[in-house]
This record gives sequence, structure tokens and C-alpha cells, in this order.
Amino acid sequence: MKGIKRLAQDLNISIGTVSRALNGKSDVSQETRARVMEAAAAMGYVPNQAGRSLRKGNTNAIGFIYEGEVGTTGHGDTFFLGVFSGVQDVLSRHHLDLVVLPCPRDDDPTEHVRRIMARRMVDGLIVSATRRKDSRIELLNRAGIPFVALGRSSTPGTYPWLDLDFAGVAGQATDRMVAAGHRRIAVAVPSNDVNLGFVYLEGYKQALARHGIAFDPELVLRVASSEEGGYQAGHELLSMDNRPTAVLLIYELMAIGLYRRLNEAGVRPGRDVAVVGFRESSLSRFLSPTLTSYRISLRSVGVMLAEALLASMPDYAEHYPMGLVHRVLPLELVEGESDTTFVSAAGRRERDP
Amino acid sequence: MKGIKRLAQDLNISIGTVSRALNGKSDVSQETRARVMEAAAAMGYVPNQAGRSLRKGNTNAIGFIYEGEVGTTGHGDTFFLGVFSGVQDVLSRHHLDLVVLPCPRDDDPTEHVRRIMARRMVDGLIVSATRRKDSRIELLNRAGIPFVALGRSSTPGTYPWLDLDFAGVAGQATDRMVAAGHRRIAVAVPSNDVNLGFVYLEGYKQALARHGIAFDPELVLRVASSEEGGYQAGHELLSMDNRPTAVLLIYELMAIGLYRRLNEAGVRPGRDVAVVGFRESSLSRFLSPTLTSYRISLRSVGVMLAEALLASMPDYAEHYPMGLVHRVLPLELVEGESDTTFVSAAGRRERDP
Repeated sequence: MKGIKRLAQDLNISIGTVSRALNGKSDVSQETRARVMEAAAAMGYVPNQAGRSLRKGNTNAIGFIYEGEVGTTGHGDTFFLGVFSGVQDVLSRHHLDLVVLPCPRDDDPTEHVRRIMARRMVDGLIVSATRRKDSRIELLNRAGIPFVALGRSSTPGTYPWLDLDFAGVAGQATDRMVAAGHRRIAVAVPSNDVNLGFVYLEGYKQALARHGIAFDPELVLRVASSEEGGYQAGHELLSMDNRPTAVLLIYELMAIGLYRRLNEAGVRPGRDVAVVGFRESSLSRFLSPTLTSYRISLRSVGVMLAEALLASMPDYAEHYPMGLVHRVLPLELVEGESDTTFVSAAGRRERDP
Repeated sequence: MKGIKRLAQDLNISIGTVSRALNGKSDVSQETRARVMEAAAAMGYVPNQAGRSLRKGNTNAIGFIYEGEVGTTGHGDTFFLGVFSGVQDVLSRHHLDLVVLPCPRDDDPTEHVRRIMARRMVDGLIVSATRRKDSRIELLNRAGIPFVALGRSSTPGTYPWLDLDFAGVAGQATDRMVAAGHRRIAVAVPSNDVNLGFVYLEGYKQALARHGIAFDPELVLRVASSEEGGYQAGHELLSMDNRPTAVLLIYELMAIGLYRRLNEAGVRPGRDVAVVGFRESSLSRFLSPTLTSYRISLRSVGVMLAEALLASMPDYAEHYPMGLVHRVLPLELVEGESDTTFVSAAGRRERDP
């Protein structure tokens, strides 16, 4: 005799209770669950996933749809690694596994999701790299598959989402530049239709309006979210007749290419042009000049994503009585050396005292 | 009537043949397979994965064990994204899905693999971040689970592996530095027991021996595989009495921190200290100075990994008659601006003509 039957006998409780305890059901007391888990761990018991999947109609796996191209996510991969770790912290409470499902580069993202659904690989999904109009969201909505979106979308539906405060960061960065005397502030955003580009740009525009500065479309640099995109942004910046004195970057890797292009032209970032990045990382701390940017705990983003998803799944909802989560997560300024210049009213650049 | 039965009727071939064609079996002709695939796609048929898994005893998924910390893999995440894409190219031929299984940061890597096996989540595994002595490999060997290792290990067993030519790159880079006149060449390697660190260091030592240069343990900088590790390497370099004139970096992100630390001290990388990185990437192309490093196609690494794995799996072996793959992949030099200095016999530094 082995597995669940032996556990039940050893613990002198019913097979049904053991099963519900192992599956994280809420009608089992914390104490019983702890006893079962401990005994299961001691005897090295792990449920047969494939068998359980058919019997219960679920897989005990949560999928994370991941697109490789930074251009579509706006985030580097260290971003996702931090997020995965937080997601796993929550899933492990319920013996759920995280499986990351990278969308092949030449695959259609919607077909990728359709295949995952058809193959019944997971019980719920975390969808990243949301588009402004996202047919994956439509598809999941229609099919009634539980999911949470990392990144807002204008595609309607009653699904949970979380997002980083792209508008808030763009607004704060613009305020900061204006306070330092800058009036011509460029902004580098992705050239594709990833929604965070729209949100970031909107935050920038609204901040300009607050300060009575007219929006100049010439100052919007649409480039790839990469080192190369940053180089391109630097190039466009340098070729303008009335060169901007500051530039906001939506993605930190852009700073590497931007710094290079400016240095090639003898223009020093942080002294001749103020630069502000988006997410603070070890990259921003070790560039020269260090990059002023905004900090967020990636692990906590992952924890919140997983909790928002489980809150929307009938089997787990009562552990997470938070309803339908729509949440914009704030980021905290980390001052670097990249924007210590200020521009006087006369337009003359001076070193910050 | 739907699914496989309808396909068989529409195409007027047996259900068994349709099934074998859908499962990528080799006893079905290319022509028949193409007809079945086309018809299946036209009617939107996708096999029920959970059902098929129990009947066939497999999952049609291949797992990629992925550790988040660059320190344990020696690679950034853009590395893995490129590799995933090549793996998927091969798996899609057989309607196999790639599921990436990130090892939680605070989880024991061996327990992680044990759990994946117990849950029968995948038919085969790609294991990365191999340790010099790797108990995951022991475990998989004992259990008879098909797997391929990305990175050699000294753990014995008859399993396929692929590796990047860390020894070859370290040797070539050392040769290059010696040819440019350098005699005191430092090397930055990971501070943990990831096997690629040993292999890289061995290549460096052998090259020194070829040139009759004594190995000096002081020149081995054991640091984290990160920007911060590079900064630390720069710091150690600057504090040496007889400062090295060249440094080899096992990981390209280290260059960011190294450049910063050198610049802080008024020591210019590429002019005062020659620097060579490992893998060429958009990072190395946009740093100032651009980083001399070595190129490899990540997609082709992924293709080879998947093929080596399938060659070891009874269901697919006949498509890949390559036997047990043990292969070290070469990389190609991409010259940057970071090592254009040469040192004359007298030890005086001059600009390369």
C-alpha cells in the first residue's frame, strides 16, 4: 500500500480528508493540513500529477506567458526572474507549480495561448506583454480561463490586472526635469503597440500640460527597447536643431546605447544632457553616470500577481478575499548622477550646486 | 463525431495512422503526415493533452530547468531566451511543448528536480547551470529520465551534454593578450562552484603555460557574475601593487561595473587596461569602449540541445541518429575597442598602430 491510502491509515483520517488537505482545500483545518503535509513529506509522497489532472479536471500548474523580446514586454529578463520568484512563493502554499510558457519568436501570441488552452496544460495563466488591444485577453475571456494580466490593456472584460505605474513615473520624472529648469524634454518609448508605451507617454504629456509646456511630437523618440534603441535615440537627439536638454527612457538598457552615442559626440550624459530611466536595477547603479530611476520590489510584484490570480479562481478565492484586483503599483525614486544638471531660465546649463 | 475519428474519416485513413501522424511517429510517411497535419489544422483539432498523457504514459512536454541567478548559470537571461527559441523550433516538429521550470531562489535544485519527476510534468529535461558535482544529474541518471545537460559536469553517467567552449575562449583570449604584449593578465571568474568557472580557468592556465608565463593565483578574481562583480574585480585590480595590464571577464555584464570602477580611478578601459569579455551581445556592441568578445548563435545552441535530447529518447531517437552527444561548441572572435592597446616588451603601454 502506498501514497494517499497509506497516509490516511498512518494518520488515522479519511482518504478524502488527506486528499483535500494535499490539494489545499479550505474545508480542512490548518492543523490537519499541517499533519498531512508533514507525514506526506516524511514518506516522500508526491501526488501523481497526470492521474490527478484527469480525475480532478485540473493540472495544479499555473502558466506564465512570457514573450522573449524586450521590445514587446518593455522589461529585461532579470525583471521576470524576480517576478517568477514571488509568484512561486504564493503558489507553493497550495502545491501549485509555476510553468513558464515562452511564446516562440515567430509564433502568433494568440495562437500560442490557444494551444496552451487546448492542451489543458495549466489551471490558470499570468499573461504579460499586454497589447493596447490584446486578442489573447479576448480569447481567455470567452473561454472563461482564469488569468491575470501583468499590464493594463484597453481590451474590455472582467479580469484582474496589475501594472507598474508607468504614467506616475513618467509624470514624476517630467516634474523633476521641469523643476531642474528643463523645458525641452525628450522621451524614448517603444516603437510597437505595447500598452505601457501609451501609458508612459500619457503621463509625460499630462505633466507637461501641468507645467504649461506645449507637447512637441518631435521630442517623442520611438525606438527599440534595447541598447540599440538607446543609441538611435541619442542619434535623433543630437540631430535636432534645438537640442533637448533632458531625456526620459522607458527602459534602462537604452541608457547604454544612449550614453555611447552621446559620448561619441562629446556630449556628456548627466552634465550636458539629463537622463532619467525607468526601473532601478544593478545596471543603473553601475553605469557611468549612475542612472536616476525608480525602484520596485519584483518579488512583491510576483506575490501580488499570484494572489490576484488565485483570488479569481473558485478553488482558492476564499484564501484571497480581495475581489477583482485592478492595481497600479507605485515606484520609488532612486537618485543617480545622470540628471544632476540644471538649466537656468536663460537656457544656460549649470552644474547643480 | 469529432477529433481524431473525424480526421480519419475525412482523410479515409485509419485512426491509428492519424494518431501516429499526429504524434510524430516515424512509421508514417512524410506525405501522410503532411495531409493529416493540414486537415487537423483546418478543423482546429488539438489533442487533449491530459487524456493523451495518461493513455500514452507521457506528457508531450519537455522541461527546461532554469535557475534565475546569473551567478549559477554564468549567463544572462537574453542568453536563455535565444536558446528557448531554438529548442522550440525542434520540439514543434513533434508537437512537443517547451515548459520552462524556474527553480525557486530558495529551493534546493535537487529537490526541485525531484518534484518535477514525481509530478510527471515532462517527458524529458534540459538541465542548465550544471555544477562541477551535480546531484540533479545523479538523480536523473538513477531514475532513467531522459535529459541533456547544458554545461559539462564531472558527475559521471551516460547522458548527452553540450557546452560552450569556455576553455577555448579563455585560451584564445589569453593568446590574444600575450600576442599584444601583455604578461600580467587577470581573469574574473564566478565565486561559486558552477562548472564553467573551472573550465574557463583551466583554458586560461593552459594558455599561460603554452607561453611560458607562470600562473599567479593573485590574478584570479573570484567575483559575482554581475555588474557588481565587475566593479569588485576592478577594485581588486586597482589595489594590486603590480597592476595587471589586461583582464578577461567570464560574463559580459561584469564589464559595466569594471568600466565604472576603472573610470572612477581615471584608468581607461581599452587604453590603460585591455578587457576581453565572453559572449558577444548587444551589450558588448554599445558599451564605451565596445567589448571584444566571442559570438555564438543562441538559436543553434537550442536546436542542438533539443536534438541531443530527442536522440536519447526511444520515441524520437530514429529521427536523430547522432548517438550520445557530447559536444563543445566553438565561438567566434568579435573584435571591439576594449583591447586595442598593446604593451611593449619594456612594459610601456602604447596605442595599437
